[in-house]
Amino acid sequence: MSAALTRYAYLGPAGTFTEQALRTLPEVAGAEMLPMVTVPEALRAVRDGIADAALVPLENSVEGAVPPTLDGLAGGERLMIKREVLMPVTFNLYAAPGADIAALKTVASHPHGLAQCQGWLRENVPQAELVSSPSTADAAEGVVRGDWDAAVCAPVAGQRHHLAELAVDVADNAAAVTRFILVTRPAPPPARTGADVTSMVAFIAHDRTGALLEVLTEFAVRGINLTRIESRPTKERIGRYCFFLDCDGHIEDARVGEALMGLRRVCADVRFLGSYPRAGADHEGDGRAEPSDDDFADAAAWLARVRAGNA
Amino acid sequence: MSAALTRYAYLGPAGTFTEQALRTLPEVAGAEMLPMVTVPEALRAVRDGIADAALVPLENSVEGAVPPTLDGLAGGERLMIKREVLMPVTFNLYAAPGADIAALKTVASHPHGLAQCQGWLRENVPQAELVSSPSTADAAEGVVRGDWDAAVCAPVAGQRHHLAELAVDVADNAAAVTRFILVTRPAPPPARTGADVTSMVAFIAHDRTGALLEVLTEFAVRGINLTRIESRPTKERIGRYCFFLDCDGHIEDARVGEALMGLRRVCADVRFLGSYPRAGADHEGDGRAEPSDDDFADAAAWLARVRAGNA
Amino acid sequence: MSAALTRYAYLGPAGTFTEQALRTLPEVAGAEMLPMVTVPEALRAVRDGIADAALVPLENSVEGAVPPTLDGLAGGERLMIKREVLMPVTFNLYAAPGADIAALKTVASHPHGLAQCQGWLRENVPQAELVSSPSTADAAEGVVRGDWDAAVCAPVAGQRHHLAELAVDVADNAAAVTRFILVTRPAPPPARTGADVTSMVAFIAHDRTGALLEVLTEFAVRGINLTRIESRPTKERIGRYCFFLDCDGHIEDARVGEALMGLRRVCADVRFLGSYPRAGADHEGDGRAEPSDDDFADAAAWLARVRAGNA
Amino acid sequence: MSAALTRYAYLGPAGTFTEQALRTLPEVAGAEMLPMVTVPEALRAVRDGIADAALVPLENSVEGAVPPTLDGLAGGERLMIKREVLMPVTFNLYAAPGADIAALKTVASHPHGLAQCQGWLRENVPQAELVSSPSTADAAEGVVRGDWDAAVCAPVAGQRHHLAELAVDVADNAAAVTRFILVTRPAPPPARTGADVTSMVAFIAHDRTGALLEVLTEFAVRGINLTRIESRPTKERIGRYCFFLDCDGHIEDARVGEALMGLRRVCADVRFLGSYPRAGADHEGDGRAEPSDDDFADAAAWLARVRAGNA
Repeated sequence: MSAALTRYAYLGPAGTFTEQALRTLPEVAGAEMLPMVTVPEALRAVRDGIADAALVPLENSVEGAVPPTLDGLAGGERLMIKREVLMPVTFNLYAAPGADIAALKTVASHPHGLAQCQGWLRENVPQAELVSSPSTADAAEGVVRGDWDAAVCAPVAGQRHHLAELAVDVADNAAAVTRFILVTRPAPPPARTGADVTSMVAFIAHDRTGALLEVLTEFAVRGINLTRIESRPTKERIGRYCFFLDCDGHIEDARVGEALMGLRRVCADVRFLGSYPRAGADHEGDGRAEPSDDDFADAAAWLARVRAGNA
Repeated sequence: MSAALTRYAYLGPAGTFTEQALRTLPEVAGAEMLPMVTVPEALRAVRDGIADAALVPLENSVEGAVPPTLDGLAGGERLMIKREVLMPVTFNLYAAPGADIAALKTVASHPHGLAQCQGWLRENVPQAELVSSPSTADAAEGVVRGDWDAAVCAPVAGQRHHLAELAVDVADNAAAVTRFILVTRPAPPPARTGADVTSMVAFIAHDRTGALLEVLTEFAVRGINLTRIESRPTKERIGRYCFFLDCDGHIEDARVGEALMGLRRVCADVRFLGSYPRAGADHEGDGRAEPSDDDFADAAAWLARVRAGNA
Repeated sequence: MSAALTRYAYLGPAGTFTEQALRTLPEVAGAEMLPMVTVPEALRAVRDGIADAALVPLENSVEGAVPPTLDGLAGGERLMIKREVLMPVTFNLYAAPGADIAALKTVASHPHGLAQCQGWLRENVPQAELVSSPSTADAAEGVVRGDWDAAVCAPVAGQRHHLAELAVDVADNAAAVTRFILVTRPAPPPARTGADVTSMVAFIAHDRTGALLEVLTEFAVRGINLTRIESRPTKERIGRYCFFLDCDGHIEDARVGEALMGLRRVCADVRFLGSYPRAGADHEGDGRAEPSDDDFADAAAWLARVRAGNA
Repeated sequence: MSAALTRYAYLGPAGTFTEQALRTLPEVAGAEMLPMVTVPEALRAVRDGIADAALVPLENSVEGAVPPTLDGLAGGERLMIKREVLMPVTFNLYAAPGADIAALKTVASHPHGLAQCQGWLRENVPQAELVSSPSTADAAEGVVRGDWDAAVCAPVAGQRHHLAELAVDVADNAAAVTRFILVTRPAPPPARTGADVTSMVAFIAHDRTGALLEVLTEFAVRGINLTRIESRPTKERIGRYCFFLDCDGHIEDARVGEALMGLRRVCADVRFLGSYPRAGADHEGDGRAEPSDDDFADAAAWLARVRAGNA
């Protein structure tokens, strides 16, 4: 199946962190890479068959969720997460060769870049006006265009334009990480590895009091660990949310299958987003809660015996 | 299968309420009936193959559970409840022909009979000493033997011995009902009727805080109504209990099967006691909680589609 | 207050295990002891002011709950448990001096005594008919009266009647323990000791699905350990139960007070039965669950600050 | 207290929706209004005492939460929400007088404006390039400056610059509403109105499995309706979230006070953000869940009686 994936869309332009993340995937070597201007366009490329998969950012440990990605997964034709990529974010400060940091009048970056580096910028270039640019890659280009004096961007972007590196690692929170997801059209999920994530969107039935509590109970009662809960407005009216949930385990696990069926019964709607290997996890048993899947198999065998009158 | 059941043990002696209850079963007509002295002996007759089934009292709406029946089901070789019988309890006061109620010096009954009629007896035969007898049938026999003056017993017993009926319906709580169960060796349960009960014993894992809460949650999360919860000591040491649970539904229902599997996972042990028609229920939908079994079927079909990448 | 308690009713007759248990209480030395024929009469003596307190059996580790005690606490004027007494049960076999165990034709005991020794009796006196007597003390008296050949009873009863001890410790389960309670009219509960029990009866609102689950959740959410759950029919109609609950802690504990208020809100009715020292517990911290009462005090102080706008 | 509030910071520049929302507050008439460039700066103005209160956007029914507002409330010195303002969002298309919609080459707006109108823009000005501007007010100014041909912005901004209104209500989702909050330094909350919201941030203890479930249970067990659950990364590392919760009721309500204390016990930390009237609610009883606060008062009175031995 991987063999068939030869065209990868990603959130561009070239030179963004998303491109860096995409290049870490071995299967991408030699494949066609299609930079798209926005997340919705990257997802549309997959839905329209222009690309076989798209890599888009899902969340950042500092900035939080990426709303267009969540909205693009929750609505429209169903897409599937095939894998995730975690990438540390490194922001450097670049300017034209020969520039003096003390003389910078304007510094540009994507608003997230400005937000993540605001402490450093206030302290080290207090004299500079901060300018929003559509992407960190564009911020670097803008230095070449002469739109502003400096850019806060990924190393790949500064290097591409042969800019001078005035400072490295200027983010206030050095450990920032972005989680990207590789999205395809619906397909059977990749095989269980023993350290998997399952992602879904639960649309709560709002006329049921305690509906979210019911949803969480479906996981708790089966000993499944929820690793992420993210709310998004459903856009019908204020106060209506859907919930993006990630849990440990694979849809082929008995417990996860049962929990998904439970959600299907108590929710207005459930959208399965995929089961895929947890990035950065040691395979086998990482983060697995009790009871084990063996307990589920044992219970099923026992039920069959009892139903047949043989236990 | 009913055809094979030709020997019925029951809690005797002849003339007890249990005999009356057994005679209400159409399939008993013409079968051999074996009165047994105690509940454990009635159950042993089934286990040893001396009887094909045994009818024993399970609970009474005034006296509560019948401990030897609970203990006989929880321990020993597994037995199965094949059906239940509800019977209103009628206590009458019988004495030798010609006796005067004001002159009775002793009145006998089984302790439960004395307990259920104590208010009436105190008011109407305050002069009489109350005597415990091993069964209400024996109380009637004792009048014939001359052991005591009168008996509180079932009409069938008074009539069998041609005693005089001094008063009818002398129970303090006129609506008392006894629930009997017909017990066999393990076999596939009778077919679903749409208004069934499933009975089981849950042995709590005592080193898990909140274990009973977990057990109840397994039912609640699946919308299953629990109709009875009865604790019994496990006899290991004080403070250790097992729980007799009755719920709406049949083990062949998806929801009930799933809940039983859940119990199997969170309990130290679970003993399935049977699925059988609810006595006195109108068939179809009586007491069924939402979500319906159709919702469970729909959820299972959806899961299969999603696992296959087709949803 | 203890000074005022000078008349103790108990489940008689003299020579029962209850008398033995009562004599273990230091404050009883020199007090008047009133044997009552039944549990309801012992409780009535307290309600009517004939006795200041009554000692009655609540449960036995083999036989389970003592239904008349539960029913006597759940209905009628409210009574209060002031303390509990745990006593190992010892059954011996007594007969007239010179009797031969192999020649015994009849052996009597209270039905619980017969039940707890049935294995031993079947093996060691297989030839004897077993006879029910109203109490184990009466069984011993019956030997003197010549009603039967031998009695299974407490040592105190055999010795009182100068009977021959044919066998000791004949219970099938040597570790059997009976839990007795000392009951008074309502009064402020004894002071916290740090290892207390709180007892109550919860009358479930039967039109609320999952009502028992709600009750258990009131405890679980506050980290309170439930040590006993006993159901009893409410006698209105079959399938209606109230629940006797024991939990760790004292009504003066913030957590227990809050849980009781929660029960009061979700139940049809709640009857507080008392907070008293746990028998056999080492004082201080035994069986205490997290969070601690300090956490409750800290949370209350924080709430006060926040409400005042000072946090 | 309102008397003392004479300087209002808000998310500027002048001409934004926030200014429009601020002007709907009667108490603002005649007060000093301080436009701030970013949400963090508006909040800092309050913390530093430069302003008495700040109005900032909290969430939008289409775009979701406003992350800088959430982060500004969760971290730093504690602030308090004193009231909320709901405002329908109206986007119009403005250009220089005489402009032809078919000839527009560039259209600017804040990224949220572009996102909320993307369907309309694609259909009605497909030829135009979309340009991000730092605010909708700046988009209008940019038309005057000649930076781009047209702006998608609030009516107040178009009118202020005497631009031509080419189209009204161009948002794809006409019912979009923004929720603003008026934030002050900590103070006693405004009085109960009977239709209040309480807001808080819960920092989950991540080493406790099921911690979020515990948090939700604290509300459910007390019959409190949660109206909003919003997760945000805590920025320590990916996969760590805090939760912004809104519930029905006021911190002075017994039930809400108890739930907050419960959160305090089970969470690593809780930050109370305020109790304030629900905007758009009819006063009295709107959205109130059972049991009522009277039930809480009744339960407290009962507990006091029972503790005193008088019940």
